[in-house]
Amino acid sequence: MDTLTPASVCRYATIHVTTRQPTEFVDLTDRLERLVADAGFRFGILNVQTLHTTTAVVVNEHEPLLLADFQALLEAAAPGDGRYRHDDTTVRTVNMTDAERPNGHAHCRALLMPSSACLNVTQGRLRLGQWQRVFFVELDGPRERDLSILIVGEAGR
Amino acid sequence: MDTLTPASVCRYATIHVTTRQPTEFVDLTDRLERLVADAGFRFGILNVQTLHTTTAVVVNEHEPLLLADFQALLEAAAPGDGRYRHDDTTVRTVNMTDAERPNGHAHCRALLMPSSACLNVTQGRLRLGQWQRVFFVELDGPRERDLSILIVGEAGR
Amino acid sequence: MDTLTPASVCRYATIHVTTRQPTEFVDLTDRLERLVADAGFRFGILNVQTLHTTTAVVVNEHEPLLLADFQALLEAAAPGDGRYRHDDTTVRTVNMTDAERPNGHAHCRALLMPSSACLNVTQGRLRLGQWQRVFFVELDGPRERDLSILIVGEAGR
Repeated sequence: MDTLTPASVCRYATIHVTTRQPTEFVDLTDRLERLVADAGFRFGILNVQTLHTTTAVVVNEHEPLLLADFQALLEAAAPGDGRYRHDDTTVRTVNMTDAERPNGHAHCRALLMPSSACLNVTQGRLRLGQWQRVFFVELDGPRERDLSILIVGEAGR
Repeated sequence: MDTLTPASVCRYATIHVTTRQPTEFVDLTDRLERLVADAGFRFGILNVQTLHTTTAVVVNEHEPLLLADFQALLEAAAPGDGRYRHDDTTVRTVNMTDAERPNGHAHCRALLMPSSACLNVTQGRLRLGQWQRVFFVELDGPRERDLSILIVGEAGR
Repeated sequence: MDTLTPASVCRYATIHVTTRQPTEFVDLTDRLERLVADAGFRFGILNVQTLHTTTAVVVNEHEPLLLADFQALLEAAAPGDGRYRHDDTTVRTVNMTDAERPNGHAHCRALLMPSSACLNVTQGRLRLGQWQRVFFVELDGPRERDLSILIVGEAGR
């Protein structure tokens, strides 16, 4: 364990994502690594947080067939054609908007995954294993989406 | 990305919750926002962590029918009347207490959700999207529960 | 809520784990508590992050029969003998290695659990509830595994 000269700062950013599919895994890793490099952090914690309730942030491998497996898993856990009280406009009264569309399945899938990923920054880089990539998970697309990124730690090179 | 004058502090608090149902989604958002405002943070990370093993902390929409959908999803994933080795007092020897009650289903449900939420604080406020609310999830109530909150970041307005 | 004299530091460490079973819950709590004590932190956030994509980090109770229940739950969610596109070497072209073995089920199980745990440090100790233990979850063992630990907060006793 290494002790570091204290020179703590916070930096923050927003990432915008345009999704094109109902379910989509958007790889954010390169954008996050650039943020860490640009901010000049040596050590710290980066928290990448979705700002939506039918989305998630996960860390896993970027292999296209595996992403299809994930989609099948989520479909089994909360089927897109299942019945959700949230989508029953004959009884629902709360949080109704003109843009409402049936998305109970998407909220349920989001419940099973984290809404943010907390990642370590060491020696000026995002600390990720060989196969680890950070994904924004769209569960009710296509939509315009935003994520908030905040880094707390030690600046300086 | 904005660089900020370093003036880092940590602040912490405990939140107490009394739950009244076996499964219950308790909205903590207002209490967390008040903590951030009272602590005078401008930027940072707030970690809200449950101190129990049959509970969770999730971020999702606060719509009552949706919360009922979540309950149905959890019931399907780990049925309340399922058989759990953890509840088999004829063979179990570890961590037994007088207050023991069958709650294997609650531990299993907790495995599928995070035990804490890491949330960004920007410009003096909890950074949440339009529909995002932070929930303490009771899975084995009714009980008395505690959560630990810690904020690391930049104070000052 | 207590305000603390600012004296922020980051410290980091790596934990190595050798797993011996296909699925295994490795209790990291004692090692993490020692890291916090050795680093001399009073308050802060500790992030323990796996560096692999067929693993997870969870907080739950350490009761052996319960860990067997968890294994049954994960087997039901993503069966070991299920069919995964990720394992179909007749069509897959991305991220192939000589050491490739069928592990689609392990990636899918990992999707349902967090890849890191963010834990509060208060008064010089990891803030955990009575039954809370921090587990590294092996889903594709046996293997050699590494976790990255980073603590941000206030040093001094």
